[in-house]
Amino acid sequence: MAIVLGPNQYGKAEVRVVAVDRSSPRHELVDLNVSTSLRGDFTAAHTRGDNAHVLTTDTQKNTVFAFARDGVGSPEAFGLRLARHLAGSYDWITGARVAVESYGWERIAVGGQPHDHAFRRPGGEVRTAVVTVDGDDVHVLAGLSDLVVLKTTGSEFWGFPRDRYTTLAETRDRVLATAVTARWRYTPADGALDGRDWSGLYAGVRTVLLEAFAATHSLALQQTLYRMGEAVLESSPDVAEVRLSMPNRHHFLQDLSAYGLDNTPGSDHPVVYHADDRPYGLIEGTVLRDDVPPAEVAWLGTPGFC
Amino acid sequence: MAIVLGPNQYGKAEVRVVAVDRSSPRHELVDLNVSTSLRGDFTAAHTRGDNAHVLTTDTQKNTVFAFARDGVGSPEAFGLRLARHLAGSYDWITGARVAVESYGWERIAVGGQPHDHAFRRPGGEVRTAVVTVDGDDVHVLAGLSDLVVLKTTGSEFWGFPRDRYTTLAETRDRVLATAVTARWRYTPADGALDGRDWSGLYAGVRTVLLEAFAATHSLALQQTLYRMGEAVLESSPDVAEVRLSMPNRHHFLQDLSAYGLDNTPGSDHPVVYHADDRPYGLIEGTVLRDDVPPAEVAWLGTPGFC
Amino acid sequence: MAIVLGPNQYGKAEVRVVAVDRSSPRHELVDLNVSTSLRGDFTAAHTRGDNAHVLTTDTQKNTVFAFARDGVGSPEAFGLRLARHLAGSYDWITGARVAVESYGWERIAVGGQPHDHAFRRPGGEVRTAVVTVDGDDVHVLAGLSDLVVLKTTGSEFWGFPRDRYTTLAETRDRVLATAVTARWRYTPADGALDGRDWSGLYAGVRTVLLEAFAATHSLALQQTLYRMGEAVLESSPDVAEVRLSMPNRHHFLQDLSAYGLDNTPGSDHPVVYHADDRPYGLIEGTVLRDDVPPAEVAWLGTPGFC
Amino acid sequence: MAIVLGPNQYGKAEVRVVAVDRSSPRHELVDLNVSTSLRGDFTAAHTRGDNAHVLTTDTQKNTVFAFARDGVGSPEAFGLRLARHLAGSYDWITGARVAVESYGWERIAVGGQPHDHAFRRPGGEVRTAVVTVDGDDVHVLAGLSDLVVLKTTGSEFWGFPRDRYTTLAETRDRVLATAVTARWRYTPADGALDGRDWSGLYAGVRTVLLEAFAATHSLALQQTLYRMGEAVLESSPDVAEVRLSMPNRHHFLQDLSAYGLDNTPGSDHPVVYHADDRPYGLIEGTVLRDDVPPAEVAWLGTPGFC
Repeated sequence: MAIVLGPNQYGKAEVRVVAVDRSSPRHELVDLNVSTSLRGDFTAAHTRGDNAHVLTTDTQKNTVFAFARDGVGSPEAFGLRLARHLAGSYDWITGARVAVESYGWERIAVGGQPHDHAFRRPGGEVRTAVVTVDGDDVHVLAGLSDLVVLKTTGSEFWGFPRDRYTTLAETRDRVLATAVTARWRYTPADGALDGRDWSGLYAGVRTVLLEAFAATHSLALQQTLYRMGEAVLESSPDVAEVRLSMPNRHHFLQDLSAYGLDNTPGSDHPVVYHADDRPYGLIEGTVLRDDVPPAEVAWLGTPGFC
Repeated sequence: MAIVLGPNQYGKAEVRVVAVDRSSPRHELVDLNVSTSLRGDFTAAHTRGDNAHVLTTDTQKNTVFAFARDGVGSPEAFGLRLARHLAGSYDWITGARVAVESYGWERIAVGGQPHDHAFRRPGGEVRTAVVTVDGDDVHVLAGLSDLVVLKTTGSEFWGFPRDRYTTLAETRDRVLATAVTARWRYTPADGALDGRDWSGLYAGVRTVLLEAFAATHSLALQQTLYRMGEAVLESSPDVAEVRLSMPNRHHFLQDLSAYGLDNTPGSDHPVVYHADDRPYGLIEGTVLRDDVPPAEVAWLGTPGFC
Repeated sequence: MAIVLGPNQYGKAEVRVVAVDRSSPRHELVDLNVSTSLRGDFTAAHTRGDNAHVLTTDTQKNTVFAFARDGVGSPEAFGLRLARHLAGSYDWITGARVAVESYGWERIAVGGQPHDHAFRRPGGEVRTAVVTVDGDDVHVLAGLSDLVVLKTTGSEFWGFPRDRYTTLAETRDRVLATAVTARWRYTPADGALDGRDWSGLYAGVRTVLLEAFAATHSLALQQTLYRMGEAVLESSPDVAEVRLSMPNRHHFLQDLSAYGLDNTPGSDHPVVYHADDRPYGLIEGTVLRDDVPPAEVAWLGTPGFC
Repeated sequence: MAIVLGPNQYGKAEVRVVAVDRSSPRHELVDLNVSTSLRGDFTAAHTRGDNAHVLTTDTQKNTVFAFARDGVGSPEAFGLRLARHLAGSYDWITGARVAVESYGWERIAVGGQPHDHAFRRPGGEVRTAVVTVDGDDVHVLAGLSDLVVLKTTGSEFWGFPRDRYTTLAETRDRVLATAVTARWRYTPADGALDGRDWSGLYAGVRTVLLEAFAATHSLALQQTLYRMGEAVLESSPDVAEVRLSMPNRHHFLQDLSAYGLDNTPGSDHPVVYHADDRPYGLIEGTVLRDDVPPAEVAWLGTPGFC
């Protein structure tokens, strides 16, 4: 028996790069949080502190800024450029993972007209991209996180088994709220990934996710999750699989009966709920095409999915 | 010399109440975080543990939910109802403070049409209201927090004094970014506060703040802050004073010269900045009418202002 | 009527300075988060963007690092040096506020012996100091935040008034938990503040706060709060007043009766509680000597107190 | 081609259970954050909203509280009881994952004596356990997170390759700081897991991790990471593998030369560093025995490791 080094990676996390295109008076702004990781043969650094193979994380950071100067384009395209460069920089580096968070900004309206160089950041929802280079393979995951949505009706929950510890009442009308994290993998895993309209694809998937959440009469959050993934696959032939993580942000009907007040969804008063923090349900699932080869390496290091 | 009880208050913080108006198929949703505090004679609770004067924080929470069932209206109107009820509930209670955070939701579009009962929460920016009852006086502060804005040009910073420790270069063109917290006080401090179109007033002030940020060619963040407050007072005769807290979220030009790359605002490449976390500048100030009596009690317990 | 500038201040927030004394093999480490603010005549910067009076926040940051090189000493002593320097740097600067958070580190034990240069940061609790220079006056507030404490018994709550909205049951035995924020002001407000053993004073007050929390049989969190402040004043003649902010972190008895299980403090089983997040009670109060002149300027900009 | 459901799980996250053993006047306190997940055949819930197989997350929460009443013991033992119960509750449930965070409390000293029922929570560092039942197999991961450690010397970094984007200077003496997340897997994966002294094992591994961090003269954070894992395996025959995630919390020497001040580790002044937030290096790796069968299912859903 011997003690050995197993899987490992290292890189620079959370490089906050903002690039401004000033080529016309109408400036364009991209605001990213970029994390890079390298994989390959780094055994000597671990066992002997020999750094001859260690492309420093500081250099990785510098590379992010230098590449941004040539224009970012979409998060996916920027990730592809960076990941290929990093993975190709030395022969002992066999793979790279570049994860990008992209923060949206909208133009401030002044006198009803969108301003040329003043912006507001709405906050909340984040667009994400994860590019993985693994030897000759390249994988792209697009996604979003913190898409907070809620339905005030159109959600039921009943028909579940009851054991000794079950006290939950069945309901035919409840509030359903969640913060969607979704990631989807594009096919194929090769050079043909380039030249796509990544932002157009992203916008299309995002719309489908929102519409599926809203339009699905829900009997279970699992059903809503599945329908959201299914709708993406139906509408996007480029997408091989979708992974969704959806906390059930409970909104409990507040019991007002002690003060002589009813509080039920059928009443003519406003219905009053308590938005609860913890604990929360957590529903996670994958929806995929049954004829697409799996690509676990594309998901390595991307948390929140089974 | 004796040891005595000084100023004190107590209450329930962060009651997360969501109220849904289902009186038509087009549901309306309000989502609030309500904190209440009572002031008055609570000496016996402190010195002897005698709770005869203590309207419990649990009761305060129940009251928030019960009042929400009658309809919330605006955060300001809800705060007024609650604060007057709480301050008037027992004769030893002489004042109450109700602070409300209001989270905006927008309807999800399905097939281009806003949905009746499915919503998305944009996140980030929060609308706030603080109502203070102090004996016969009533004060209303409206506000917003986390309004994140940025200008990619139209900001200079020069002409400052230089001492031994000054190394900062002057600049005629920098990124200016901040997360605005603003609070403004309505006049007069009496019953005439009721019946206003609080949400209309709020929307008007918010627009003025955004437009002033965008349209001001800035020589200092202080100048931008002052102009934002001044514009509110010019456009809103109901507002007596505005207090603003604006962190300077530094975006530093990234030095790329070591790799043979220039990176200046005048170039034809995208300009690359590093968005920094800490430390950050913090600019805070009040803009007010010189003929309005002060009302410090309106601001008691509202942090972030001088 | 005219629109004018009211109270204002500006500075650099959250300068994260770490200083290591290596004068012997047994290194000493201080880890601070320093925020500075200046007060004075900055009207021209606000109204005209004229920065001739603006000692830049970047310079303030540089000053923090430069001063740390001469040795930090205690947070209070460091704040005094910085605040006096900043307030005295130009005649239009009439005041300065320096707020310091100090993070504790303890030596890692190796083979039972505390290591010379390897440390562990326990996290949580933070020591604080706020120094305010206001013209010729100097004020020092010491304090701590996030001191999380809990009693599993020795806490009752009953005898409170019951109105329409009161549902809370009285209890003779509950869990009492809070996260203490405490700040205390030293007297007198003049040069005699110097040369004290700030860290010894701090340690003494902290011990008194902990012992008072533990030893007080509590009939109300207000009573515990008052007793903690009173004990500090009794034991520390240098302290003029204590301000405490104590959230009531509710631990609710979990109702297990639906599964045929009792769950009461008197049982021979473990008693099971649910630690709740929101809402929470919030108890805030001041305990002071009745013969000490107030000093509101010492508290300006220090949130969380009435 | 068909669209199908892939891997999925669901459960209740962050059940905050506190259990107090009052069987003697000297109370014992455990404070846990428990998350449960179920795996099995939940296809009908996803595709049809048929909940006949869905043991509700509310029931899972109730089960956590009910089981706590029988005594928690160690986090590992509690996880084993819960995971086996949940996985065995219905034949369509084939697996369960129970993740536990355990928050430490220490007794408050009063007059030098540890108090019977008053406690302080140090904060920061968290003990973790993850138990996975997968059919007949059972896996236990112990661990810790947020163990923040720092060395003021005894750390070098040099000998790395230099490409176009490399600007980092080599150093023979730097501050090394990190927040360790470590998880280790016990063998074997069967019933023989029971009856161990989980808390004793945990304490032993924690001590070894701390001592290895302190005692290793570091040429790279990778070397420190590897040595920490190796030391655990050398000292703990029960442990099959260790996974470590260690951000490099950069402490940069502050350049004071512009004010005529040197600032180098060899000087007789305190050395001044700036503790940086982002970006940060992130080093992740596995150290394992080469003769132990892998068990990827034990790590499913545990983020932060490759």
